[in-house]
Amino acid sequence: SRELMIFSGNANLALAHEICAYLGVKLGEATVASFSDGEIRVKIEENVRGADVFVVQSSCEPVNDSLMELLIMIDALKRSSANRITAVIPYFGYARQDRKDQPRVPISAKLVADLISTAGTDRVLTMDLHAGQIQGFFNVPVDHLYALPVLLDYIMKKKVKDLVIVSPDAGGVERARAFAKRLQATLAIIDKRREGPNQTQIMNIIGDVEGKSALLLDDMIDTAGTIVQGAQACADKGAREVWTACTHAVLSGPALDRLQGSCVKQVIVTNTIPLRGKDQTCPKLYQLSVAPLLGEAIRRIHEDESVSSLFA
Amino acid sequence: SRELMIFSGNANLALAHEICAYLGVKLGEATVASFSDGEIRVKIEENVRGADVFVVQSSCEPVNDSLMELLIMIDALKRSSANRITAVIPYFGYARQDRKDQPRVPISAKLVADLISTAGTDRVLTMDLHAGQIQGFFNVPVDHLYALPVLLDYIMKKKVKDLVIVSPDAGGVERARAFAKRLQATLAIIDKRREGPNQTQIMNIIGDVEGKSALLLDDMIDTAGTIVQGAQACADKGAREVWTACTHAVLSGPALDRLQGSCVKQVIVTNTIPLRGKDQTCPKLYQLSVAPLLGEAIRRIHEDESVSSLFA
Ligand SMILES: Nc1ncnc2c1ncn2[C@@H]1O[C@H](COP(=O)(O)O)[C@@H](O)[C@H]1O
Ligand SMILES: Nc1ncnc2c1ncn2[C@@H]1O[C@H](COP(=O)(O)O)[C@@H](O)[C@H]1O
Repeated sequence: SRELMIFSGNANLALAHEICAYLGVKLGEATVASFSDGEIRVKIEENVRGADVFVVQSSCEPVNDSLMELLIMIDALKRSSANRITAVIPYFGYARQDRKDQPRVPISAKLVADLISTAGTDRVLTMDLHAGQIQGFFNVPVDHLYALPVLLDYIMKKKVKDLVIVSPDAGGVERARAFAKRLQATLAIIDKRREGPNQTQIMNIIGDVEGKSALLLDDMIDTAGTIVQGAQACADKGAREVWTACTHAVLSGPALDRLQGSCVKQVIVTNTIPLRGKDQTCPKLYQLSVAPLLGEAIRRIHEDESVSSLFA
Repeated sequence: SRELMIFSGNANLALAHEICAYLGVKLGEATVASFSDGEIRVKIEENVRGADVFVVQSSCEPVNDSLMELLIMIDALKRSSANRITAVIPYFGYARQDRKDQPRVPISAKLVADLISTAGTDRVLTMDLHAGQIQGFFNVPVDHLYALPVLLDYIMKKKVKDLVIVSPDAGGVERARAFAKRLQATLAIIDKRREGPNQTQIMNIIGDVEGKSALLLDDMIDTAGTIVQGAQACADKGAREVWTACTHAVLSGPALDRLQGSCVKQVIVTNTIPLRGKDQTCPKLYQLSVAPLLGEAIRRIHEDESVSSLFA
């Protein structure tokens, strides 16, 4: 049958290597570099004719470069007669611009989905989309995994007493509920309100955190503003300790400083986005690997088996 | 009739302002900025419903950011019910990757053309494409202008004696011939040859440069290697003086240092790509404006007149 081949751009090479280790295949050889003027230079260095190819590339920072690497690699693979090309996008960037919440703004998430199809992608494998609806932006099959089992596994092993799962906003309640159920923990929701235009925000917590161990859960941590505010609100309401977990460690701008200066004990993240320079030295950050999950999904897609049992 | 509106990304705002001045219209208000994580944030700040919109944006360095700005602006304009959207791309990046000159490489120029259509572009206006064939990569109408009249005008005013137009390689002969004809100058061609694998290149000049004023002509100057080598070859063959002209001042990596250290007297460029930091202080660089040419083309496209007489 068709050969399984894995290629990677520069966005998360380490993760691609882990996925290859899980599958027992060698990472496909490809040059993905830049010309002197910054244009991306791609050459697929091995024969892919007839192969079942997976390209691992998160559209994380530098987001536009990462995205163009993915598109140009797919173009090169398509022109090299790969039989099928699956874009493995552990972190799908531009996901927050997924609707017109004001006049005359783009829906960049839809645009990016169209760009990925245009380049010649046959399928997409991604994780914890900011909104499940983004699956519908694609005209090709999408397998959408959740990092939940990986995060749950780690949290369960901690055997935390009096755990309460806290959603930092109303949008995250479903995710928090799924976690709370599996962990047999209680649930709380932070409800930010601004009473008037120039009033400071009031953080109400719906549910009980007093004397408990509060785990704030989100799909991503970007500038960490929401998480750090929410953590403080939990502490103010008498939480014994506060930690936080997310799938996508975007960690831009002031994120690291904010987390370091906060009451958050530990920040559990996955490797859908690699930790960079200073993030790696932050003692509060703890990174879990989604490589086995992605590897298993790739194996099943390759063998035409159902992936749905992985949607824990 | 439909209102003419001009918008611009950040790639060449100064040129967009000049085009607006030529047309006597105000540059359309738009926010084109970045979120903390580097994702592009666009908001069109005025009503464009039913308008005939032109978006000025070269895909120059940082090329992937410039390109994504263009795509996201077009998405936002389309969703804001613009009647027609013309992408004005004075410098079309990724143009040199326009064919498979080796196995398993992308044809990035075609991919980029497809991305621009996918975003919702109705027409394209561009200048001095690296290869005319790239017009065929688009499924929408393309107007393709030449900077030749702007360069010619300046060179003619110099009233140089004994002018010879030199093509730096065989690929540029047609362009050089067009110039030589208009300027009633003679023509020469540089023929680089490597006799064996580890032999240095020999620069043959076909045609006569001795005692003459040699003008090396190219569509773009990137790292300036070709131009500086060619200039030295002309000097070695007895040219009285050497200068050079190009449309697109890519000027990446060692370009500036090479030009400064070379025998080239003057480097005539246009503003399809803005001069940056240190380029602006280089006394050899002389920049001409293509704003009137682009402005006139935009006026004609808007008024449904033929643009072809501008193809001097
Ligand atoms: N990269 C980004 N960084 C911060 N905010 C963003 C980003 N992309 C989109 N947004 C904004 O985030 C909001 C949507 O986020 P959410 O309500 O969490 O789905 C919208 O108002 C977007 O304009
Ligand atoms: N941005 C770039 N910088 C330098 N060389 C490039 C670039 N893009 C493509 N090329 C190479 O330039 C060659 C084509 O240039 P040309 O022969 O002038 O059309 C091909 O071998 C390309 O791989």
